[in-house]
Amino acid sequence: MTDDLLALGRNILRAQPFSTHLGTILDAFSPGHAELSLVVSPLHMQHQSSVHGGILAYLADSALAFAGGSLFGDAVTVEMKINFLKPARGDRLRVVADVVGSGEAQAVCRCDVFCDGEAGTVLCAAAQGTIRRPPAKR
Amino acid sequence: MTDDLLALGRNILRAQPFSTHLGTILDAFSPGHAELSLVVSPLHMQHQSSVHGGILAYLADSALAFAGGSLFGDAVTVEMKINFLKPARGDRLRVVADVVGSGEAQAVCRCDVFCDGEAGTVLCAAAQGTIRRPPAKR
Amino acid sequence: MTDDLLALGRNILRAQPFSTHLGTILDAFSPGHAELSLVVSPLHMQHQSSVHGGILAYLADSALAFAGGSLFGDAVTVEMKINFLKPARGDRLRVVADVVGSGEAQAVCRCDVFCDGEAGTVLCAAAQGTIRRPPAKR
Amino acid sequence: MTDDLLALGRNILRAQPFSTHLGTILDAFSPGHAELSLVVSPLHMQHQSSVHGGILAYLADSALAFAGGSLFGDAVTVEMKINFLKPARGDRLRVVADVVGSGEAQAVCRCDVFCDGEAGTVLCAAAQGTIRRPPAKR
Repeated sequence: MTDDLLALGRNILRAQPFSTHLGTILDAFSPGHAELSLVVSPLHMQHQSSVHGGILAYLADSALAFAGGSLFGDAVTVEMKINFLKPARGDRLRVVADVVGSGEAQAVCRCDVFCDGEAGTVLCAAAQGTIRRPPAKR
Repeated sequence: MTDDLLALGRNILRAQPFSTHLGTILDAFSPGHAELSLVVSPLHMQHQSSVHGGILAYLADSALAFAGGSLFGDAVTVEMKINFLKPARGDRLRVVADVVGSGEAQAVCRCDVFCDGEAGTVLCAAAQGTIRRPPAKR
Repeated sequence: MTDDLLALGRNILRAQPFSTHLGTILDAFSPGHAELSLVVSPLHMQHQSSVHGGILAYLADSALAFAGGSLFGDAVTVEMKINFLKPARGDRLRVVADVVGSGEAQAVCRCDVFCDGEAGTVLCAAAQGTIRRPPAKR
Repeated sequence: MTDDLLALGRNILRAQPFSTHLGTILDAFSPGHAELSLVVSPLHMQHQSSVHGGILAYLADSALAFAGGSLFGDAVTVEMKINFLKPARGDRLRVVADVVGSGEAQAVCRCDVFCDGEAGTVLCAAAQGTIRRPPAKR
């Protein structure tokens, strides 16, 4: 069933043009847990040779939504808060997200964004947010 | 002097490959205030035909950093919080940011992200964050 | 009708032992807007002679909930984010909250917390949060 | 040395009239980690018979500040974000905070607020925030 979930998650990610464009991969997906990664490209940079904070925020948003969405089938990010800890300088970004607590329609999730590079692995950002079950389609 | 600030801001934005890649424009830039926009492209979408929340978060992060950075010469986003209010479906995204309060080294800023489309202008996201003066280079 | 709303709001506030204990007053209450205040007492302090951040967070939480709750009849604070801008040193704290955007069941609100003292009025904290309509009672 | 830290922490807490008033206890304090608790009293309630969110926010603010302050000697909370997960109905509130990452002058911390009651232990709130080393006294 977890394999089915991973396949479902990858289908959702693949259906997102922005995620496909950035090359984001869903590495792990199980109930309450999600891991995504992307290979850093020169296109992702800001003006001081580190990855743009917007990319870290995109990854955090995505991972929180997948972690919460694993409980609901699909997901909408209601809100999130992100702290930028260190500049992201490296080859690959990884984000690991977990559900902290959930109710019938909402889940609170946290994630950490790591950058793997020559200097090893650096925790670049930490986020927390609210994921909601999308409204039923009629 | 405000024109100089706008020119400076546009140079900083142009030096960010990710912003150039997304086609972000700095529309207004004065002490404590910044406005940016971008034309929505099919590449920016998520899987439900609205703009990916990561793009809204990128715009919010950028606008907060410009608003705060206008006081400091340059800027680092320490953290931000974003609420997603409505799906962004339209042709153009605009973000308007203002400094709420500032000290010697940090500024607290707020911004609103709007989407202009056939349905008129919709407030899609609202954010608040902390911008810090970058450490002096040695 | 606004007077009725103010009376309703004051009843809710009066029914909160913690708010009564702190001496919180609902000064203004209209659809999408709320203002509260309290007189600073020595009991509210932290160890550096300014008001404890927890009191500012309490006021922000309350004001956001009243602003959002004005649309829903009652309210639950889902989450909030608060930036502490300046130490609160003065006689009176005031918080002014407004709805930024709302849907059927949730509202995003912002508020500013001011301290009135000898030095004039100081913006001490700025907050943003999500208010939800409470679940229907059965 | 950890005992010294705990004694130092308790002195700081005792010097806060608001914390003394609420009866807050520092249960554990080591580098990068802090635990506080308080016994719930009827004075802490809101109008729906659960503990006022302002008390949970106070506890979160305090625990984040102690966790970060353990690295700096003392601490100022720059900002925090709190999600309210479940109503706090019980006898005792406990908060557990840890540093997620830190630099020379700032630390990012997370905490969880639990309520112990007849129904067992419930996670009531989760927070994340930024703690700063206070400016040097002159």
